[in-house]
Amino acid sequence: MKKLKIIIVGGTGTMGKHLTAALKKEHDIIIAANKSGDIQVDITSTVSIENMYKKVGAFDALISTAGPTYVGPWNTLTDKEFRQGVEGKMMGQINLVLIGQHYINPKGSFTLITGALSHDPQLNFANASAANCAVEGFVRAAAIELGNGIRINAVSPTVIESSPQYFPYFPGDIPVTMKQLEFGFRKSVFGANTGQIIIPY
Amino acid sequence: MKKLKIIIVGGTGTMGKHLTAALKKEHDIIIAANKSGDIQVDITSTVSIENMYKKVGAFDALISTAGPTYVGPWNTLTDKEFRQGVEGKMMGQINLVLIGQHYINPKGSFTLITGALSHDPQLNFANASAANCAVEGFVRAAAIELGNGIRINAVSPTVIESSPQYFPYFPGDIPVTMKQLEFGFRKSVFGANTGQIIIPY
Repeated sequence: MKKLKIIIVGGTGTMGKHLTAALKKEHDIIIAANKSGDIQVDITSTVSIENMYKKVGAFDALISTAGPTYVGPWNTLTDKEFRQGVEGKMMGQINLVLIGQHYINPKGSFTLITGALSHDPQLNFANASAANCAVEGFVRAAAIELGNGIRINAVSPTVIESSPQYFPYFPGDIPVTMKQLEFGFRKSVFGANTGQIIIPY
Repeated sequence: MKKLKIIIVGGTGTMGKHLTAALKKEHDIIIAANKSGDIQVDITSTVSIENMYKKVGAFDALISTAGPTYVGPWNTLTDKEFRQGVEGKMMGQINLVLIGQHYINPKGSFTLITGALSHDPQLNFANASAANCAVEGFVRAAAIELGNGIRINAVSPTVIESSPQYFPYFPGDIPVTMKQLEFGFRKSVFGANTGQIIIPY
């Protein structure tokens, strides 16, 4: 397999660490995160995203595991709280693609993170449902627009096994293992599909 | 059938006019629009939305046909253009619900507008794909959160027959008739379902 230069945004988080460990033997991994990591990026800022890509230069794959959203009771949910997911998980990831397409190598790939809340809502997570769905709609649209053989997919897990603090919010959902999640990302990065929402469970 | 007090946001547009004509014999219709109409509202402003509801008072159903998004070539699409759909069709409609829930009568309903682009993308419409999907995710989440028997659905047409200027953008899509569209909204307002994306074709 060809050695790829892969940017993992959110690379210092739970998912990012696992993916880095899983992929670094065979590929060049650049860990992008708010703080620490190989390079710093604030995905709520288009200037920060542009600076990240300028520093990294051409690359083969971008994996995003970065998805800040608002979690909290519906009856105090207003436009203000809703903006967390709009700016973070939604526009943050969309801008990673809109800007990154000008830096990525031909036949490169973008893999974003969404989640089961898009089709399977849970109390307290309306913001994530909307942000996830927005990203999924964007992925399908971007797949028919991106040129040079560049692909885009999203991985959509439900609650993940390494985040037990969220288990009570997802009654009846069997947590996705880190291995399942990893394989969802592998399917996107190393497969040939585009415009897909990959459900790794 | 009980006479309902129905707000139609975007009531002076193509869909809004049809729905008003179809429903006004049996119900009290309040036409809300940017300009003209019975009441003015700018759905990109939470202050304007709040003012509309304060003036209208308690109501039984809100129908939104208001969905500004950016339509244009992918290669010049940036965060700036993308905000049209984020502020308009997405957050505009979401805020109509987040604010309106405090004014709507028990057992009332919200019916928002999305569109086939959420699952069936077309060139030039990535912004609408994302905004539509965001609203659909929100509708599913809001349906399990809203109290007092309040329901919420979305109607998702493809290109509509009264907008022939859009036909070239939707190759192979049989235009939705105004009657089909009307019946989609009727299903939401007068039916009992909630959290549904109603495809009226």
